[in-house]
Amino acid sequence: MTENAPRPAAPARRPGGRTARTRAQVHDAVVAQLMEHGYDELTVDAVAARAGVHRTTVYRRWRDVGGLLADVLDAAGDDTWGPRDTGSLEGDLAALNDEVQAALTAEPPITLALIAASFRSDEAAQALKRFWGKRYTLCEEVVDRAVRRGELPAGTDARALLVAATAPMYHQLVFLRAVPDPGLPGQAARTAALAAAAGAFTAAR
Amino acid sequence: MTENAPRPAAPARRPGGRTARTRAQVHDAVVAQLMEHGYDELTVDAVAARAGVHRTTVYRRWRDVGGLLADVLDAAGDDTWGPRDTGSLEGDLAALNDEVQAALTAEPPITLALIAASFRSDEAAQALKRFWGKRYTLCEEVVDRAVRRGELPAGTDARALLVAATAPMYHQLVFLRAVPDPGLPGQAARTAALAAAAGAFTAAR
Repeated sequence: MTENAPRPAAPARRPGGRTARTRAQVHDAVVAQLMEHGYDELTVDAVAARAGVHRTTVYRRWRDVGGLLADVLDAAGDDTWGPRDTGSLEGDLAALNDEVQAALTAEPPITLALIAASFRSDEAAQALKRFWGKRYTLCEEVVDRAVRRGELPAGTDARALLVAATAPMYHQLVFLRAVPDPGLPGQAARTAALAAAAGAFTAAR
Repeated sequence: MTENAPRPAAPARRPGGRTARTRAQVHDAVVAQLMEHGYDELTVDAVAARAGVHRTTVYRRWRDVGGLLADVLDAAGDDTWGPRDTGSLEGDLAALNDEVQAALTAEPPITLALIAASFRSDEAAQALKRFWGKRYTLCEEVVDRAVRRGELPAGTDARALLVAATAPMYHQLVFLRAVPDPGLPGQAARTAALAAAAGAFTAAR
């Protein structure tokens, strides 16, 4: 382990060991500090104190607030999440949108706080982009299944379809600060599925 | 004019007169300060100095940074903007999306800075919501025209259609920090138009 590397990627050298435990404690502290006091009081010192980890360790491993947020987001993408298989494209997209709606309306609003933080830190913004990129890649399975079932033509642009299905959720709940509409996940899923069946994501642009 | 009102709505008492000029100077200063130094250095004192307006005037009329940002956004919605009429639903939506893409990729990135500020100030968030609400209401004309041309059935949910058409623009350019794709405005417009023609915004939810 190179102690003086300018920006260690915070690998868990021994999964489940002390390094991994420290990382989990620090991540929990980042989220708790962000939720309780907001970005303005999210400092390396506050996180170190809260996590019960020596501040030198935190500075060496994560350097600054951007590095801390990015690592929280990168860790969130290192899970075993996968899209549900409901048997139909519209059903799969609706299930996905239900999860998006749940995340964006959860209490405490951790997802919203991380999105807000991404407007303060370029490093968090890049990590959020990586997180969403991973999720969208995993969701391509939803489109592959629909193609295999004959619901969609081969050559459907999976990413464009998935963005069309999910973007209205983020738009309404984050940008337009709309009251959550329990019908929205299904409606946005149906819209994208109808557009896909009509060839919106296959023809030459 | 009630000098001691706790939160004047900053009306231009004499349009084109001194009050309106002061308001315009202050708005320009808010945007310039935000663009050059970011939200953290956006203070009433900095704005007053930059605008050449007495700080007492700014405090009395706008009270704080939230009031300043909200008034800039409210003024942005008080223009004569209207959606273009290209003769087809897909064309109108593509023209709208071209404007969204232009705003989100403009240099200097004023729209992005105001969106970012809306994550710092509840007042700015509410003003941005009002601004977008006005714009979407004006755009309902696009859907009305399509219904009159027989492109869409009466009873089409105009707002849902407009959000479906525009949300992928914001999603790609703001959340996913994607490289601007000149094909995206047309593709998102086409997707929404196809879904609308397939009945996505008319059937019971």
